[in-house]
Amino acid sequence: MRKMRVGVVSAYSVKYELRSEREAWELIREVVQGTLKSVDKGISGRDIDFVVISNFSDRFGGILHTAPYVISLIGQNSARGLRVENACASGGTALYVAWNLVRAGLAENVLVVGYEKMSYQPTSAEVNEVLAAAGHPDEIVIGAPFVSLYALIAKSYMDKYGATEEDLALVAVKNHENGLRNPLAAMRRKITVEDVLKSPYVSWPLKLYDSSLITDGAAGFIVSREPKKFTDTPVYVESVSLAHDTPGVFERPDITELKAIRHAAEEAFKISGLSVSDIDVLEVHDAFTISELITYEMLGLAKRGEGAKILKEGVTTFTGEKPVNPSGGLKSKGHPIGATGVGMVAELYWQLRGEAGDRQVRDAERGLMENHGGTGGTVVVAIFSR
Amino acid sequence: MRKMRVGVVSAYSVKYELRSEREAWELIREVVQGTLKSVDKGISGRDIDFVVISNFSDRFGGILHTAPYVISLIGQNSARGLRVENACASGGTALYVAWNLVRAGLAENVLVVGYEKMSYQPTSAEVNEVLAAAGHPDEIVIGAPFVSLYALIAKSYMDKYGATEEDLALVAVKNHENGLRNPLAAMRRKITVEDVLKSPYVSWPLKLYDSSLITDGAAGFIVSREPKKFTDTPVYVESVSLAHDTPGVFERPDITELKAIRHAAEEAFKISGLSVSDIDVLEVHDAFTISELITYEMLGLAKRGEGAKILKEGVTTFTGEKPVNPSGGLKSKGHPIGATGVGMVAELYWQLRGEAGDRQVRDAERGLMENHGGTGGTVVVAIFSR
Repeated sequence: MRKMRVGVVSAYSVKYELRSEREAWELIREVVQGTLKSVDKGISGRDIDFVVISNFSDRFGGILHTAPYVISLIGQNSARGLRVENACASGGTALYVAWNLVRAGLAENVLVVGYEKMSYQPTSAEVNEVLAAAGHPDEIVIGAPFVSLYALIAKSYMDKYGATEEDLALVAVKNHENGLRNPLAAMRRKITVEDVLKSPYVSWPLKLYDSSLITDGAAGFIVSREPKKFTDTPVYVESVSLAHDTPGVFERPDITELKAIRHAAEEAFKISGLSVSDIDVLEVHDAFTISELITYEMLGLAKRGEGAKILKEGVTTFTGEKPVNPSGGLKSKGHPIGATGVGMVAELYWQLRGEAGDRQVRDAERGLMENHGGTGGTVVVAIFSR
Repeated sequence: MRKMRVGVVSAYSVKYELRSEREAWELIREVVQGTLKSVDKGISGRDIDFVVISNFSDRFGGILHTAPYVISLIGQNSARGLRVENACASGGTALYVAWNLVRAGLAENVLVVGYEKMSYQPTSAEVNEVLAAAGHPDEIVIGAPFVSLYALIAKSYMDKYGATEEDLALVAVKNHENGLRNPLAAMRRKITVEDVLKSPYVSWPLKLYDSSLITDGAAGFIVSREPKKFTDTPVYVESVSLAHDTPGVFERPDITELKAIRHAAEEAFKISGLSVSDIDVLEVHDAFTISELITYEMLGLAKRGEGAKILKEGVTTFTGEKPVNPSGGLKSKGHPIGATGVGMVAELYWQLRGEAGDRQVRDAERGLMENHGGTGGTVVVAIFSR
C-alpha cells in the first residue's frame, strides 16, 4: 500500500486576516470554489468522492456539520465526508486521513478544507479561553493558557541550553521578513530584534512578538490517486505521520523536548526513504518562537540546544540551505487553527511547483511540513516531492 | 478487503443523565476504564493502536483535543488518535472510521469513545443554539432550530400520508416503555398517548414528548482485527455505510424522505449480503418521533407512508418481529450527541451477546443501527452479527 504515489493536484487559500468581514461559511465557499478551479486540467465536483474538513472549535465560526455543506457546494451527494479535530494539528490530521483514504482505496480524490474564524470571539481573552480547551484537563482547571505552558518550556530550554530572549526574537524577525513577500500573510510588517524585545511580556519570558497571530482564514487542497489525470506537475505525498505526546506539559520528564515531533519525523523519513538532508523547504509550526527552535532540533536540522545557532548561521533563512517558513509562518502569515496545517500543504504545493512568486525558494524539489497541536500532544509531519 | 470480519470485543456506557454532576473528562475517564475492563479475555492499553473520539461541540463540555488525553489515559503514546464530528452522526462516523482503519490494515485494535455534556450550557435555549449550528448556514441565519425543521417534515408527511399526531405519539410511548427496562436510560417514565398529546407544542405539530432528551453521557467500544484474541463471543461488524443528503431541508424535492438513510441502508445491505428480513433488532435515530417512522420506511421495514401502520401492528415493539429501540432510544435513553451512535453500537453488542438483561430481545442474531445528523444530512447505517 505504501508504494502508491498519492499526489496533491490543487491548492487554494484565502488571504489570512486578523478580522475577516466574512462569515466562516463564506470563507469555506471561496476555498471550495478556488480549490476546484485551480486544477490545471480541470476537475468536476463529481470527481470528488470524499471531503475532509479541518476545524478546531465551533466557537470560532458558529457552524458545525460542515462536511455535507461542502458536499452540497460541489454539487455532489454520493461523496462522503467528515470533520476531524486534533487542536492546532487538525489540518495535518486531515491530510493524514485524506492520504490514507486514497492509499486504502476508499477514495479516488479527496477535497480537504480547513477553516477557522477566530474573530467570532469578541476579545482575545475569549479567544484564549477557547484555545485553552485543547490542553490537559488539569491544565484547563488551573487556567493555564498556552502562552504560559510554552513560557515554561522556553524558560526550561533557556536554563538548560543558555538560549536568550534575543535568540527567540530572531525567529520572529525571520518569519516577519518572509511574510513581507507573501500576499496571503495577515501581518506584513518588518520587525527588528529590538521591536520584539520591547514588546510586552505575555507570559515571561515570552512576549507579544514571540506569539503567533489570532487570525481568520481558510485553505484547501485535493489529493488524488491518479494525479496525472488532473495535472502534469502534481506534488507527491511521500509520507504523512501522526504521533502523540502526553497532552499535559507537567507529565513530561523533559519539557524542553517536543518528542512527538521527533517520532513523527522519524516515521515520515522512514516511510519516504528520505532524510532531512533531502529536504529543500520547510513549513513548521511556530505557534511561539520557542517552538520553531525546538522543532529544528526534533527534525534533525540542528543538534539539541543548537536551534538558535543554525538560525544565526542563516541555515533556515529565506536564502539559507534549509529555508523554514518562507510563507511567514504562523507568526506573520497567521494561525487560523483549522486552516493552518491545510495552508502548509498549499504553501509546499506552490513551492514545489515553482509558483510561490516573490517567496519562491530556489530549486525546491522536496518539502516537509510539521504541524502540531497543544504543546505537542499531537504532531503531523509530512514529506512532499515534485 | 471487505471479507475481513472486524469484531467488536468490548462496549461500555455510563448511565445517561439529564444533568450529570461530573465534568466531560470524568465521563471520558469512566468510559475508557470501563471499556478496557469489559474485555472478556482482558486487554492492555498497549494493545490499542488507534483512538477515535466522537464529540459534537466543545460548547458541550469545554474540552477539545481529547484524542491524546485518551491515549495518555490508556498509558500509551505510540497509539494514534483523532476526533471526528458529523453532528448527531458523529458516533456512527467514528464507527465508520474505526472499521476502515482496521480493514485497511492501519490499526489492529481501535478504541472509540463518544461523549457530550449538554448541561454545560445553562439553559435549553443555549443548548438549542449550539445544536442549530449543525444546520445549513441559511437555516442558521433564519434561526430555525431542528425541532422546527422536523416539524416541517412532520407536517408534510402528515399531509401526504394522512398520518396523525396520535401516530407520532405512539413512537414516544413505545420507546418510553422500552426505556423502563434499561438501567442506562436517562428518563425511565411510562407515558401514554394522552400524555404526549397533552404536552406543549414546541413547534407545531411536534410537542415536547415528540422530542428526544437533552442529556449528558458517554460510551465506548473496541473493534479488533483479531476479535477471538479478546473474546470467544465477538460481535462482528458486517458493514458500515456513510451517506449524505443536502444539509438544508429547503434544498430537497420531497422533504418526507430522509434519502441518505435509504442510500446508507442499501449500501450496508449490499456489503453484508443481508437484507432487512435478516435483522432481529434495531437501534435507530428517534431524535423526533417523526424520524423513527420515516426511518422504518427508508430501511424497508415499512412501505412509504406505512410507518405508523407497522408500529400499530406491533412489528417494532419490544416483543414484535423487528424490535426497534429496545434501549429506549434517543427519546427515553437519551441523546448525548457525540455518545449517541457509540451507545447504539454498545446496545447492539449487548443484545447480540444476550447480555441486555430485562430488555434482551429474544434470539437476536443480527442487529442494525441507524444514526443520523442534522435533518439527515449525514447518515450512518451499520449491520452487526453474533
